[in-house]
Amino acid sequence: MIIDCHGHYTTAPAQHDGFRAEQVARLDDPSLPAPVYKEISNDEIRESVEANQLKLQKERGGDLTIFSPRASAMAHHIGDEATSSEWTRHCNDLIARVVELFPDNFIGVCQLPQSPGAPIANSISELERCVNELGFVGCNLNPDPSGGNWTSHPLTDKSWYPFFEKMVELDVPAMVHVSASCNPNFHATGAHYINADTTAFMQFIQGDLFGDFPNLRIIIPHGGGAVPYHWGRYRGLADMLKRPLLSEHVMRNVFFDTCVYHQPGIDLMFRVIDVENILFGSEMVGAVRGIDPETGQYFDDTKRYIDALDIPDADKAKVFEGNARRVYPRLDAALKARGK
Amino acid sequence: MIIDCHGHYTTAPAQHDGFRAEQVARLDDPSLPAPVYKEISNDEIRESVEANQLKLQKERGGDLTIFSPRASAMAHHIGDEATSSEWTRHCNDLIARVVELFPDNFIGVCQLPQSPGAPIANSISELERCVNELGFVGCNLNPDPSGGNWTSHPLTDKSWYPFFEKMVELDVPAMVHVSASCNPNFHATGAHYINADTTAFMQFIQGDLFGDFPNLRIIIPHGGGAVPYHWGRYRGLADMLKRPLLSEHVMRNVFFDTCVYHQPGIDLMFRVIDVENILFGSEMVGAVRGIDPETGQYFDDTKRYIDALDIPDADKAKVFEGNARRVYPRLDAALKARGK
Repeated sequence: MIIDCHGHYTTAPAQHDGFRAEQVARLDDPSLPAPVYKEISNDEIRESVEANQLKLQKERGGDLTIFSPRASAMAHHIGDEATSSEWTRHCNDLIARVVELFPDNFIGVCQLPQSPGAPIANSISELERCVNELGFVGCNLNPDPSGGNWTSHPLTDKSWYPFFEKMVELDVPAMVHVSASCNPNFHATGAHYINADTTAFMQFIQGDLFGDFPNLRIIIPHGGGAVPYHWGRYRGLADMLKRPLLSEHVMRNVFFDTCVYHQPGIDLMFRVIDVENILFGSEMVGAVRGIDPETGQYFDDTKRYIDALDIPDADKAKVFEGNARRVYPRLDAALKARGK
Repeated sequence: MIIDCHGHYTTAPAQHDGFRAEQVARLDDPSLPAPVYKEISNDEIRESVEANQLKLQKERGGDLTIFSPRASAMAHHIGDEATSSEWTRHCNDLIARVVELFPDNFIGVCQLPQSPGAPIANSISELERCVNELGFVGCNLNPDPSGGNWTSHPLTDKSWYPFFEKMVELDVPAMVHVSASCNPNFHATGAHYINADTTAFMQFIQGDLFGDFPNLRIIIPHGGGAVPYHWGRYRGLADMLKRPLLSEHVMRNVFFDTCVYHQPGIDLMFRVIDVENILFGSEMVGAVRGIDPETGQYFDDTKRYIDALDIPDADKAKVFEGNARRVYPRLDAALKARGK
């Protein structure tokens, strides 16, 4: 079974983005009427997925995608907590409908109603709703709700702990995932995403989050940002900071996906990162949608790169399925309930 | 000849850091007397270098280090422009003294008197002083003088152009190099440095800086941040943004050093980046000072990783010498003047 741990609903019907546009417009002009979320039919949802994520999933040989709202559209920095909360609820409900229509192909992960300065504890109820009522198996946690101004505390700060406690209680992991950047220095998918991945990993080295939460599980997407390429630097910094070995201090709890869009990058990742810590992911349909002129294949068809690795089949099975079932126990339970 | 393009004077005598401490203390308490920069003898400078950078240079088989003030101590975010200007002048003067004492082993690159909000044009006179009077061959340019708050314009913004015009006129390159981070999210050498490298590269993809300055040369240190690991992503993003191929759009003007502290990282870099764009660098004595328990060698002894590459000797000669002489023409001229 091939489980893609990183897919976003980047192709939602126009009514969804239309609501958001009206919501944002009203922030500028409060005299505008409160936007109404217009009905989206099942057929519209089917079409939006069948022509995109589902088509590519089948063409590329995937089975199940762990599916979440469009990451760049979370935009927690827009408006206030009420804005974020209303938008988040619609986003998550739409994911639930995709999962309901295609239960064999998608399972949900939620966006959170984060907002700059708002306590993360305020996101707990939406996490509980999504997990307990909608059957979601994880969440996307934004380490920088300010959208590139980095005004929050590091993820290892105790202000985040109430949320981590709830994650552990619900037994769901979080993918660390920023959203759009409102800082002109940072291109969203080309700089902000990768920087956030790198930043989170270094925060985990500096702190002792997993000493406090030995059962907390975090996925760092986009191949772990810069981390595998600079694996020697991070091993060396852990040593300089008198931290335990990364294998003990961080890598019992942190996992990287395979959203690295060329063979040499994937080769490096598998050379330095234990196979137990790697989850197949493509971020399809996402940041990079074109065809690589050097290979004639889609950049984000990351399954090809893993297929091409000279590693045991048992290791590939871990990356494609076993690790995801271990990191997302509720996914495993859902699959087992279906006899898979 | 082995030229290390990336060395910092991280071991300066105590008087130097003492001056800085007094300068910073006076920002908090203006009633304190203006600090006096205490005399440093030639012997003190010799000792500080002979026991550290020079010792390691010789042990590792290097010949010449392109040497600049301690990057993390530039701290452009501390105080105002006058603070930065005074500190910068002392830092650069001290580099000039090292070069004067060890002209065969070191050549200078300057820090700039940047300050948040201060026009970069105000750094031109110090660049001219260092190049024309002190014989320096390049500069370190901080894309984020705010120290992790990223309040400046992207490097492709026209506000930076006066400085780039001067660089082209003087025929000196810049290494993009941030300094200490005052944002608790970003560990300086573990996150801020790497993020800045990645960020600058993506800015260059988005903009057209090298269309406007075809002779401008920029070194992105630390192996280009996350870029080589995500080379497919960057090729794909350039395609999505309808930019020319990276080889034409960016890589005629941008160079990466080899400050990547493990063999797999260096292997990847040489697999995806043209050898013409790679300059030997170690950042020694710098961010990571320990010995890798997996190899028994210093993490930052990057020459070993290049020595171990299965590439033609002519390519290694480019990385160790030829490319540096091309990117730093004033270095080449200085060496030729000595018959080297």
